[in-house]
Amino acid sequence: MTAPLFDRVALIGIGLIGSSLALNVKAGGLARHVAVTTRRRETLEKAEALGLGDSYHLEAAEAVKDADFVILSVPVGVCGAIAREIAPHLRQGAIVSDVGSVKGAVIEQMRPHLPETAEFVPAHPLAGTEHSGPEAGFVELFRNRWCILTPLADTDPAAVAKVRTFWEACGANVETMTAEHHDLVLAIVSHVPHLIAYNIVGTAADLETVTQQEVVKFSASGFRDFTRIAASDPTMWRDVFLTNRDAVLEMLARFSEDLASLQRAIRWGDGDTLFDLFTRTRAIRRGIIEAGQDTAKPNFGREATATPAREPAPGER
Amino acid sequence: MTAPLFDRVALIGIGLIGSSLALNVKAGGLARHVAVTTRRRETLEKAEALGLGDSYHLEAAEAVKDADFVILSVPVGVCGAIAREIAPHLRQGAIVSDVGSVKGAVIEQMRPHLPETAEFVPAHPLAGTEHSGPEAGFVELFRNRWCILTPLADTDPAAVAKVRTFWEACGANVETMTAEHHDLVLAIVSHVPHLIAYNIVGTAADLETVTQQEVVKFSASGFRDFTRIAASDPTMWRDVFLTNRDAVLEMLARFSEDLASLQRAIRWGDGDTLFDLFTRTRAIRRGIIEAGQDTAKPNFGREATATPAREPAPGER
Ligand SMILES: NC(=O)c1ccc[n+]([C@@H]2O[C@H](COP(=O)([O-])OP(=O)(O)OC[C@H]3O[C@@H](n4cnc5c(N)ncnc54)[C@H](OP(=O)(O)O)[C@@H]3O)[C@@H](O)[C@H]2O)c1
Ligand SMILES: NC(=O)c1ccc[n+]([C@@H]2O[C@H](COP(=O)([O-])OP(=O)(O)OC[C@H]3O[C@@H](n4cnc5c(N)ncnc54)[C@H](OP(=O)(O)O)[C@@H]3O)[C@@H](O)[C@H]2O)c1
Repeated sequence: MTAPLFDRVALIGIGLIGSSLALNVKAGGLARHVAVTTRRRETLEKAEALGLGDSYHLEAAEAVKDADFVILSVPVGVCGAIAREIAPHLRQGAIVSDVGSVKGAVIEQMRPHLPETAEFVPAHPLAGTEHSGPEAGFVELFRNRWCILTPLADTDPAAVAKVRTFWEACGANVETMTAEHHDLVLAIVSHVPHLIAYNIVGTAADLETVTQQEVVKFSASGFRDFTRIAASDPTMWRDVFLTNRDAVLEMLARFSEDLASLQRAIRWGDGDTLFDLFTRTRAIRRGIIEAGQDTAKPNFGREATATPAREPAPGER
Repeated sequence: MTAPLFDRVALIGIGLIGSSLALNVKAGGLARHVAVTTRRRETLEKAEALGLGDSYHLEAAEAVKDADFVILSVPVGVCGAIAREIAPHLRQGAIVSDVGSVKGAVIEQMRPHLPETAEFVPAHPLAGTEHSGPEAGFVELFRNRWCILTPLADTDPAAVAKVRTFWEACGANVETMTAEHHDLVLAIVSHVPHLIAYNIVGTAADLETVTQQEVVKFSASGFRDFTRIAASDPTMWRDVFLTNRDAVLEMLARFSEDLASLQRAIRWGDGDTLFDLFTRTRAIRRGIIEAGQDTAKPNFGREATATPAREPAPGER
């Protein structure tokens, strides 16, 4: 057996992401010791009952003591406060990382607090579910998913390489880019989609002409896919929108502009504009399936009991 | 064995919906004879190769001759033309139905052509996948899904009851409402969700700051669920928006108004407004899961196998 990658890993925050990391550290033997810390005693006790770590702490300062790898898995909005709290207790040369869905703001908030002797390697695993808490974690969460690292200009490349190895050991494919570009990419592939999903579910709930009961009953016609997204954690998503404001507003403006033009096409009966767009968007779906980012099964295979009249031909997947 | 519900069923259009109906008629012994008709020879030959009917016709007039039940499963925009074409050939007392996703416009287009002696029972099964054509059909498509009937004031109740029995035999739960109300309900649970999914996929494709390749690569963060919806059939959806224009524009106006207010909340850092909405929308998701309209598994159980990026094994499809 090779030596573990790290001596002591401190996991700050032990919800869906933190607990999935804990399971990976254990499964891969990635550290000699896992110190778990979280805000509430109740969550810490759940983590302990699940056996997620080797030691459990209500004080983050205690958990990071002697740790050579510290990962924050908490809402983006509290990263700064936690960085300030742990900074004086960090061991020389410790690598500090996070999993926040926004990178620019996390860097802005954390960096001023961290000592020169620590190496800061911001990270964002593009993996999650709509469930939260330590019981929601599972070891395969990161498998075959992307993890984006956004190292700073002055981050030690050896620290970046170590974090990359860590995420690869969790099964992720690692990509590196600037925090600014990360925030733009995520705004369009994740943040704005979540916002419009939340928005349409809200709109539907507030109608007078169609009851909420009808919306629920007939949701399978498209709407229910949006409700899954709109069931994501409110705290996490509030923080995402507040901290990735500029990129989200930029993408949202484009979305609204495009929607206004579709609205106009509908109003004036311009079927060609609609047809052209609806044809173009199919190509993107094909790209996603070819890239292995989704299943080609109808309805994501949700109706797995259903047996299509024939097997799809390879070209159709 | 009881007698079949119908003597001769004429299926006009044999794509996803038509072929799924054919499989149900056969499986349930719902008719003595199934006459299949479609516009293109190529599609008709596919239907014949799949053994979907008892006779195959390129002329709709021929298929409906002597039929006591005629179902149109074609794009909404062509229902009127087909009604005109078949009207002179309909047998006395024949029940005419359709499966169109919009009901007001279908009635407006078809009704003037149909003879007094025919009974018109418009229907809409809320079941479908993003795939098209006769090979896409499967017998379980309608099982446990809703089918909405929108009979006219002068439709014979006995004909409505027979169509209800037919859909129940296909496994559907049947609901009756006015065409006008149907179009409002569908605008919010289906049509506007599809429109915004098409729209955001289009927006993403046109960005300069984020490449299409990046969008595809990182799509799993939320965006890919929209791409599945935005891969639906362009002809069908063009017709839906053109024919359910008023209800779609009404719901879209509400959606845009609500989105503008979220945009404002983000711009001004009003986290409470965001948090409140994101909390409210969770309740609707819970309602949908409790109503049995969706699975509670994270990601629709898509990652149940934990290896999303590989090809599904044959048995899994
Ligand atoms: N879920 C996803 O889909 C996903 C995907 C990629 C990245 N992320 C990022 O990962 C972060 C954590 O997500 P998660 O899904 O693991 O969340 P989660 O399951 O809700 O867990 C959140 C953790 O953060 C702690 N926490 C919450 N509020 C806090 C506060 N004000 N001060 C200190 N600690 C606090 C919680 O502690 P207590 O329970 O003790 O209160 C818990 O340990 C997210 O905010 C997001 O930026 C999430
Ligand atoms: N798919 C869904 O999710 C869904 C759900 C509920 C209701 N619906 C309704 O059902 C209708 C049919 O949907 P589908 O999914 O079965 O479509 P599909 O698989 O694309 O099949 C369409 C059928 O209509 C025929 N057709 C197309 N254009 C025509 C035209 N201009 N003139 C005459 N026939 C034409 C096609 O004939 P050829 O192949 O011979 O050209 C084919 O037989 C939709 O338009 C929609 O209103 C669909």
